[in-house]
This record gives sequence, C-alpha cells and structure tokens, in this order.
Amino acid sequence: MTEKTRLITPRLPRGFEDRTPGEIAAVGAMIDKIKAVYERYGFDPVETPLFEYTETLGKFLPDTDRPNAGVFSLQDDDEQWMSLRYDLTAPLARYFAENFESLPKPYRSYRQGYVFRNEKPGPGRFRQFMQFDADTVGAGGPEADAEMCMMMADVMDALGLAGKYVVRVNNRKVLDGAMEAIGLADDPDRRLVVMRAIDKLDRLGPDGVKLLLGAGRKDESGDFTKGAGLDSKQAEFILGVLFSSVAAEENVNRIGGPEGAQPLRPNASFPINDYISKVGPAFPEGLGELSRMKSLFFAAGYNPDRIKIDPSVVRGLEYYTGPVFEIELTFKVQNEKGQDVVFGSVGGGGRYDGLVSRFRREPVPATGFSIGVSRLANALKLTGNLGATEPSGPVVVLVMDKDQTASYQAMVSELRNAGIRAEMFLGNTKNFGKQVAYADKRNSPIVVIEGSQERDSGILQIKDLIAGKQAASAISDNAEWKAARPGQFEIKREDLVSAVQKLLSEQ
Amino acid sequence: MTEKTRLITPRLPRGFEDRTPGEIAAVGAMIDKIKAVYERYGFDPVETPLFEYTETLGKFLPDTDRPNAGVFSLQDDDEQWMSLRYDLTAPLARYFAENFESLPKPYRSYRQGYVFRNEKPGPGRFRQFMQFDADTVGAGGPEADAEMCMMMADVMDALGLAGKYVVRVNNRKVLDGAMEAIGLADDPDRRLVVMRAIDKLDRLGPDGVKLLLGAGRKDESGDFTKGAGLDSKQAEFILGVLFSSVAAEENVNRIGGPEGAQPLRPNASFPINDYISKVGPAFPEGLGELSRMKSLFFAAGYNPDRIKIDPSVVRGLEYYTGPVFEIELTFKVQNEKGQDVVFGSVGGGGRYDGLVSRFRREPVPATGFSIGVSRLANALKLTGNLGATEPSGPVVVLVMDKDQTASYQAMVSELRNAGIRAEMFLGNTKNFGKQVAYADKRNSPIVVIEGSQERDSGILQIKDLIAGKQAASAISDNAEWKAARPGQFEIKREDLVSAVQKLLSEQ
Repeated sequence: MTEKTRLITPRLPRGFEDRTPGEIAAVGAMIDKIKAVYERYGFDPVETPLFEYTETLGKFLPDTDRPNAGVFSLQDDDEQWMSLRYDLTAPLARYFAENFESLPKPYRSYRQGYVFRNEKPGPGRFRQFMQFDADTVGAGGPEADAEMCMMMADVMDALGLAGKYVVRVNNRKVLDGAMEAIGLADDPDRRLVVMRAIDKLDRLGPDGVKLLLGAGRKDESGDFTKGAGLDSKQAEFILGVLFSSVAAEENVNRIGGPEGAQPLRPNASFPINDYISKVGPAFPEGLGELSRMKSLFFAAGYNPDRIKIDPSVVRGLEYYTGPVFEIELTFKVQNEKGQDVVFGSVGGGGRYDGLVSRFRREPVPATGFSIGVSRLANALKLTGNLGATEPSGPVVVLVMDKDQTASYQAMVSELRNAGIRAEMFLGNTKNFGKQVAYADKRNSPIVVIEGSQERDSGILQIKDLIAGKQAASAISDNAEWKAARPGQFEIKREDLVSAVQKLLSEQ
Repeated sequence: MTEKTRLITPRLPRGFEDRTPGEIAAVGAMIDKIKAVYERYGFDPVETPLFEYTETLGKFLPDTDRPNAGVFSLQDDDEQWMSLRYDLTAPLARYFAENFESLPKPYRSYRQGYVFRNEKPGPGRFRQFMQFDADTVGAGGPEADAEMCMMMADVMDALGLAGKYVVRVNNRKVLDGAMEAIGLADDPDRRLVVMRAIDKLDRLGPDGVKLLLGAGRKDESGDFTKGAGLDSKQAEFILGVLFSSVAAEENVNRIGGPEGAQPLRPNASFPINDYISKVGPAFPEGLGELSRMKSLFFAAGYNPDRIKIDPSVVRGLEYYTGPVFEIELTFKVQNEKGQDVVFGSVGGGGRYDGLVSRFRREPVPATGFSIGVSRLANALKLTGNLGATEPSGPVVVLVMDKDQTASYQAMVSELRNAGIRAEMFLGNTKNFGKQVAYADKRNSPIVVIEGSQERDSGILQIKDLIAGKQAASAISDNAEWKAARPGQFEIKREDLVSAVQKLLSEQ
C-alpha cells in the first residue's frame, strides 16, 4: 500500500491467459468425458508437482533455439536448479522410477495439468497450457501402443467427434533403419535434424522438407534454418520411404513383413532408390510392429477410417523409440489467410523406452500420449460439441432500504437453505436501475423487491426477468410498459421460497 | 539419451509432493462440495495463470525473512520480472482491474488452484499447495463481509463438520484505532509488527506476544525476533483491548455501538488503561461494523456457536483493512509432542480495500476468504468425512498365449464397449502367477482366462477375485484349495460381457 501515487498497470504477463466461467465449465465437462474413457481402459490418476529438478526433466523439447532451451528454470536456495515441467511425460518417468517398488507393473496412469514453455508467445500459442496424458510404463509390446491408439479414438468418439478424426500411426524404427542406410547410424544430431524436418511435412510440403534434409531453408521472413546436409540422393531416399506406396509395399514383402503397413501415399517424384538394400534391422522390425498393431486394430473393430498407418508421422520429440501416433481432426477450418485447411493435430504420443532408464540400470519400456486440452476444446467449439458456456444467474434480492439489510439477508438465507442460487445486491444501492442492470448482467432469472410499502403489508414484488425480456420485445410503447409491468407480481412474504421455486421450475 | 553411463537419482524437489489416486478422488469430491456452496451464494468461477508480473503481486506475505521474500521469481527474456502467485487474491485484484469495464459490479468470483511459497519446507509445510478462494470486489459494506463468514460456515456444514468449527470474526479498525492511541498512526512498519505479534497469540500466549510488542523475543532455538518497541503501558493497552471484556463492553456503549461486539475474553492481567481516551475514529467504526455483522448473522440464523466475534483474530497479511475472519476447527488432535490441541485454522480472510486501488485512482472495496485445501482435506480425513480413497480395479484379461493377443484384445474391447473397466495384461506374460498378482494389486474384481484348451472348446475361465479372497481365508489346505478353485467357473466365449456384468452386479 506504499507508493500510493504511482499506479500499476494491470496486465496479464505475455503469453498467459485468464479463463472465464463458461470456458472453465465447458473444459471441465470435456475433461470429465476424457477421464471416463481413460478409467474404462484401466488407467488411474496421479499428479506430480509443477516443479522438477532440472536434471530430472532432461532436454527433449523440439525447436528450442532460445538460450534457456524452452524451459522456465530457477535456482533453489541450495543452489540446485529447478524447472517448471514442459510436459507430463518426463515427470512421470521420475515418479515411476522413484516409486518403482510400490507401483504395479505395468503401471497405467493418466495425468492432467498445466505445463510451461518459455517460448515466444504468439496467436494461440501460450506459455502455460493444459495437457491430459495417459501412459503405460513397463509394457514393451506393440499391444500397449495399439491400446493407446484405440483409446485416443474412443476419446474422440466420446467427445462427439466420430467421423471427424483419424489416428495416424507410424514407427520411428522404419525411419531409423532408413537413416542407417544413408550412413547416419552414428550421428544422433543429424538424425534429429532429419526427423524434425519430416515433422514439418504438413506445413512445408515435400519440397520444403527436401531443403531441410539438404543444405537448409530460408523462410518467408528471410530466416535461414540449417539443414541435415544430406546429398540429393540421400534426401530423395528418405522422402521415397515416406511417399512411395509401390516401393513401400514391395519392401514390406521383400523384408518379410506380412500384409504389411498400409500403402504409403504414392508420389512419383520420390521413388525408392538403391539405398533400400542398405537399410538397418530396425527397418523391418518397425514394419513388423506396425503390422502387429494393424491386426490388433482389426480384431478390436477399429477400421482405417479411425486408425490408419501413415509413414509421414514422426512427432518432433527426441525421446521416441518406436511407434508414434497422432490424432488428426480432419474437418476443414479457415486459416489466418482465409484458406481452407484441415484442423490438424490435437494430440499424439509414442513409445519412449529410454526415458525411465535414465534413472535405472535396467531397460524400462513405456508408451503414452498427450492431448492438448485448449486446442481440443477449440475444436469442439467449432463443431458445436463443447456444451453450455454461460452459468445460470442467481436470484437477486434488491436493497430498497439500506437499514433493512438484515431483513433482505434473511430472505437470501431462506432461498439458499432451499438450495436456490441467490444473493443480496451488495453494490451501491442508491440507484434502483443499476441494481436491475446488475441482475440482468448476471443472467439473473428473478429479482425480489421489498420497499417500505411492501414491508408494511407483508408482501414482496417478484420480477420475472426472463418473461420480462420476452414481453419487452413485444411492447414498444413506454407508457404501455409501465402500466403492464410484464413479468412482475406480488406474493406474501412467507411464500418467498415456494413462489421462487415455482417460477424457476416454469421458466 | 546421452550420458548413458551416469544414472540420475529420481527424487521430488524439496517441499513438493506427488498426489495419489485416492487423494485426487477424495479432494476432488471435497472441492465439488465447496463449489456447490459458492455457486449457491451467487459466485462464478474464474482462473488466472500461475505467473503474474512481480509488480502486480506486490509484497504482502507475512514472515518473509528470506532474501526473495517468499516468492518464486524469474526474469523474462524482455527483462521483466515474473513471479509465481503466492495466493489467489493479488491475481484477482489484477484481473478485476484489467477487466473493470466488462465485469459486473459487485463482482463475485471463486477461484481454485495452486499457489507457491519459496520458503523452507517442513513437515506439512509445502512450497506448492492448493487454495480455494471466494471474493466480492466492489462491495463496501459489512454485508459483504458477513456473507463471507456465513458462506464459510455453510461450507463446513456441507463437508459434514457441523458442530466441529467456529468462524471467528474481528475488525482491523479496532486495533488500528487502538494503535493510534499509543502513537503508531504514522508508523506503518511498527503497526505491522504489532499485528503480526498479535497473530501469534494462539501459539505464544499473551506473555510471548507482550515480548514481541516490546523489545523482542528469543525462541527455544535461541533465535531472536525483534519486537515493536512499545513500552510496558502501551503493550498492556493493546493486550487489554484484546482481552478485557468489561472494558470493551464499556467502550462499545460509550462510543455508541449498539448491543455491541461479543464480550471480549476477560483477563485481569491486562486491564484497559488511560490510552482508551486517545483511540482514533477507526476504533468505534470497527466496533460498529462488527455490531452490524452480528445483526446480519442473527437475522440469517447463524448463532455464535457457528460464527462469533473474537477480538484476538488479526490475520497476518498486511493488506487487510477492515473485518477479518478465520475458520477454526475446534476438535482436538495430538500435536507432534503428543499433546491435545485444537485442530485450528483451515482458512480465513478479510476486507482488503486497498489492493485493487493500486491499479486505479478510485477506491475499490473488496472482501474475501481462502481455504487451505490440503489442510482441510487432512481435517476431513481425521473426522472420517473424506470419503472413499481407493479406485475400484479393472477386469483383467490374462495373456496365456502370446500370439493370441489380438483375440484377447477383442475381449477387452467388447467389455469396454459395454462400459466395463477392463484391460489386457501388458507386462511379461511368461509367469501366470505374476499376472494374477498384478490383478490383485490393481484391486481387480475379475480375471478372464483363455488357454488353448478353452479356445478349442469355445469357453473362458472366469475368476472371481473377491469371492476367491473370501474363500482363501476359509481354506487352510493347499490341496483343498486347488481342488475347490474357489470363485472360478466356466462360461461360453460369447457370454463374456453378460457373465462379467452379472458377476460385477453381484459382487
């Protein structure tokens, strides 16, 4: 309360947002539906704190070209660095490792909460946002990965998005085997650049990706992104693996995969070239896992219109080691340039067998996925599946005589004790119109009025604001309005609760 | 995934905690009950981000003797300091000021979320904890404060704590007037020291407080806390105001207060002395407000066993300007020394008319309170009001043949599609006993078994784990057990869903 003279400007920090009542209610309802699916699949909740020791989190964020690598960090008073979690996966790995002895194995958990990115904010890009994850730790087979994909599909159905999404599935091992063929087996840094280039396929198209696989690419603003340094034939092979359906099917057959991965998208510009003879063992292994997942989807009744194999899915995060998957919403929206584009990804995940092993000598397989809550809520809004957004208002007891607040308070308490949402007007009571305007702004269904005349006669005026609004639109003349006083009537003081209950049930 | 050789120790950061499924469910149910009361009172939710600009939050934390004043802060890349919120009141003030034009006035909101204190952690003292607040901004009269007290009482009743709590109410103005009498009108720093001394009355008793009002006090560990520097007569007057019922009642009458505040606790050691003739105008004003609140409590049916005036309530925060209140749970618990003590405060609040004015030229009155969620949950646990804490487990389909997972997956999907919580065992399937042990650990009600013999005959084995456990306690002989196979029976493959549904409904 010092410095009374200097006013502080009230403003949200850059990249953060406030959430309104309607949004809180709608997102809450959405989260409850997602929870119900996760629980039906046998997952239990757990919650970790927002801070972890920085070394616990590791550095796995994509696109972290800023000094502190995308993470909010600070030094504790004992000199240890702590960071705000940037996702819900790294803290789960810590939790599982720390509670290894007591947890069931496999360990199925879901987690909902805020994560933080210390990045440049932009439209729709926030520095605090909510994720809703599910993971299975201690399960190595593709059955666990397949279950994740089915659960994502069921979540979308539960939210009313049936027919408007597809879960796209790929396997990092396929790409790893392909990268081995072009000589990147012992070059993790360049492998990462290749993966991140492919991850931008949707945004940049094959030609843009080819530049990023090669020397690099200059974007529209003139900024240059250094590429993976592949030569033209190497880059074409990578794109060929992604794009050529003919070659991919041939290869699946040649290397012993069964019916094989779903046909790759054909693209004559990128045929498979001679590097195919040099692929590493991960290549057929990845295709084999995809094939097993396909048969699980089939047995459980998930057809390719809901879950499909798609070799262009990569996911940007470094820690994935096998199957990767992504929920894509397929309906069209307009982008900022007014063009029709598909809504796109609202979540995804994959297998990360190395993340828990950072804490333990033994290998600990794990798989899971993450849903971006705000982005999904936004999609539901666009499709009309988000539900009600405005809370219904309280009954407002007006204050006609300032020295009678104890009596008005008694009315409010009677209403509340009967379970009715109610309040006494607590602002400046001099102006009757302002009190009614307040009730309107709160979406109040009813106001209760007791002036001295009413008090002397033991009655109350009840104003039905909903009927009043309807009537108001029918009455054009001011005098007529005053005479009719639409939606207003008298009751006995002792009938307050029953009259309000009756009116609310009729409204 | 670099540094494969060095293992990281998985550990929670100091002062933070993980939350288990039972705790999440129980606290969630508790929060829903609190929400229902807040909404019945006409409050709407709002949520602000965890970060605010540091200047927005201000410095109002009590007991912040550490360098960074109890707050986690970091510098943004544009050099501005941001802090994690330490309560939910300062961010509300920012939110209200920033959205002044569009919000209804008075503005009633409730807010639930984590707050952070950069303090030394201790037993039961965490650096991230949840608060659940309600506030009315733009309402200046004691009606708004009285409503807060009633709402706190109703929350306690809704949680099953009727008869086990009391809301204690006081008014800072009474103390402000008393401090004016002893010459502290223009000495905000010493006034704060006086208030914080009184706030420790429960813990230190009147003699300890008298030391802190005077030169200072050395605690058991030898640490010295500097006092307010009052002389003996001044300190006795302050304690006299707090303690002397006779003098207080006399004063209420003398200065025109009506029936007056509830009698102060009598204490012959601290009689009111001559300073009473020098009290400032805030003294009678505060007593008058307390008196008006009392009549509102009476009119609404809240008796002193639920809400009572208690002049020893101060609340540590600097920003309070009028009524202050506190929820005390009155049942006995044992402290760490094995002594019986009352459970104590689980929340409180007060009027803070200056907090929003930091952003605006005009005065903006406000009042509200905060509940400490973990502490309240702990109290509910002790009184048996917290509810169920263990989630019920899933039906587990065992994997008897590793190449038949598609078939097991199909069973699981059938169960899930019927709304039954179910999963396929996804761990190492070699050991049958481990699969059953997993089901036990998950509190699974049923396991489903299909080996090759069953598959050839089109049947399944259903194991009722709950009946099995009951039977196990009755059978002592191993051979007898194997012969009886309690709780296990055969069904036709096609009857899976109906048989499981029937068994679950019987369990």
